[in-house]
Amino acid sequence: MNQSRIKTGTVWGVGLGPGAADLMTLRADRLIRNARHVAYFRKAGRRGRARATVDGLLHAEVTEHPMDYPVTTEIPFSDPAYNALLAPFYERCADTLAALAKAGEDVVVLAEGDPFFYGSFMHLYSRLGGRVPVEVVPAVTAMSGAWTATGQPVTWGDDVLTVLMGTLPEEVLAEKAGRCDALVVMKIGRHLGRVRRALDAAGRLDDAWLVECATLPEQRICPLAERDGDSVPYFSTVIVHGRGRRP
Amino acid sequence: MNQSRIKTGTVWGVGLGPGAADLMTLRADRLIRNARHVAYFRKAGRRGRARATVDGLLHAEVTEHPMDYPVTTEIPFSDPAYNALLAPFYERCADTLAALAKAGEDVVVLAEGDPFFYGSFMHLYSRLGGRVPVEVVPAVTAMSGAWTATGQPVTWGDDVLTVLMGTLPEEVLAEKAGRCDALVVMKIGRHLGRVRRALDAAGRLDDAWLVECATLPEQRICPLAERDGDSVPYFSTVIVHGRGRRP
Repeated sequence: MNQSRIKTGTVWGVGLGPGAADLMTLRADRLIRNARHVAYFRKAGRRGRARATVDGLLHAEVTEHPMDYPVTTEIPFSDPAYNALLAPFYERCADTLAALAKAGEDVVVLAEGDPFFYGSFMHLYSRLGGRVPVEVVPAVTAMSGAWTATGQPVTWGDDVLTVLMGTLPEEVLAEKAGRCDALVVMKIGRHLGRVRRALDAAGRLDDAWLVECATLPEQRICPLAERDGDSVPYFSTVIVHGRGRRP
Repeated sequence: MNQSRIKTGTVWGVGLGPGAADLMTLRADRLIRNARHVAYFRKAGRRGRARATVDGLLHAEVTEHPMDYPVTTEIPFSDPAYNALLAPFYERCADTLAALAKAGEDVVVLAEGDPFFYGSFMHLYSRLGGRVPVEVVPAVTAMSGAWTATGQPVTWGDDVLTVLMGTLPEEVLAEKAGRCDALVVMKIGRHLGRVRRALDAAGRLDDAWLVECATLPEQRICPLAERDGDSVPYFSTVIVHGRGRRP
């Protein structure tokens, strides 16, 4: 067959949402069920959360392409060694996906949460641009799953919402937390103690909720001030609700 | 039939997502297709965006409960007359929904975007609490639809994201826009000129994109600096992308 006659495939970055399988979009569900090639990140030696979310949905003839992180939280993000390991890993993954697309195959990359919102898929996206067609399917964010779990609206009227990562320095967290109405802090993990101190310094601790495993059966919600210890699951989220205008 | 033996129904606040029908969640789709009672806000005399999104999905035996706003943008939010009109309207709507649930009926309230994120549903939610069971289904936010439309990730690494409403005063918009990495401004509408001036003052105008009707066929994206005039559709969104750590 003449190589030039193969239609280039598309790499789809498909958001899975916050965790519960039925919080996927109809578009994501259709793409995932029909996919013949599915790729996903995972911690080496683990099955992976993304793969677990689509359990029972994949096509009988699917080929799976797990992408095993060479490192996850063992090295701080700020360490140059982190980028030195991650950059070539993302290059190799992007090369694999581009090769599949150039061979005419569509590939669905399973992305936890929303692909363009603090996701890992964007590190592939930025390397695939201009090489093969890439499409992105937005999803329910993890933070949306978390604030819904609290049973209270997160923002009202013209509330200012700020979203922070728990990986930020304590003084940055405290300063930013003091300048908004509603607040979300993501990627809590082993930064729990620091996040708690920062919110205390900002006068927001008593209004803060910690949500672990939002939308999943093991979902757990408690006041942040009452959560002991220095570590929770990485994907835990802190929510401080806004109190804006409400007719 | 003995009134006490009727099982109380549930009021469901079901997020519809950013606009495209297939960006609804599987959970929302199932609830909407099976609903015998569907309620939705709309501008008086209009069909309503929420109702349009579910066109073709509703059950043959559904009863529709449109809730016509007594006022939308004719009166500024800050005018006491706005609350004086809206508060009793929300009370009446909540009473209608509570009466249905007490009569044993489940009711699905169609909520554009994500119900707990700057939505109108929360004004019913706060009035229904303790009266009848209420459940909320999160959804893809309008801003997620907008940043996906720009074709660039909105947040990387530990970027700080701030979400502002275009209804805020110009000096507040400018001050907040200067203190974050990634920025979303929602509810642009007739505040376009003010938002443009505020972002210019904050040094963010040249990196700002205006997204109208995200995810819909009439979607339109352009640099904010190039969008003339003082008014765009109310649900337009401005996006400034973060530039954080990226291995």
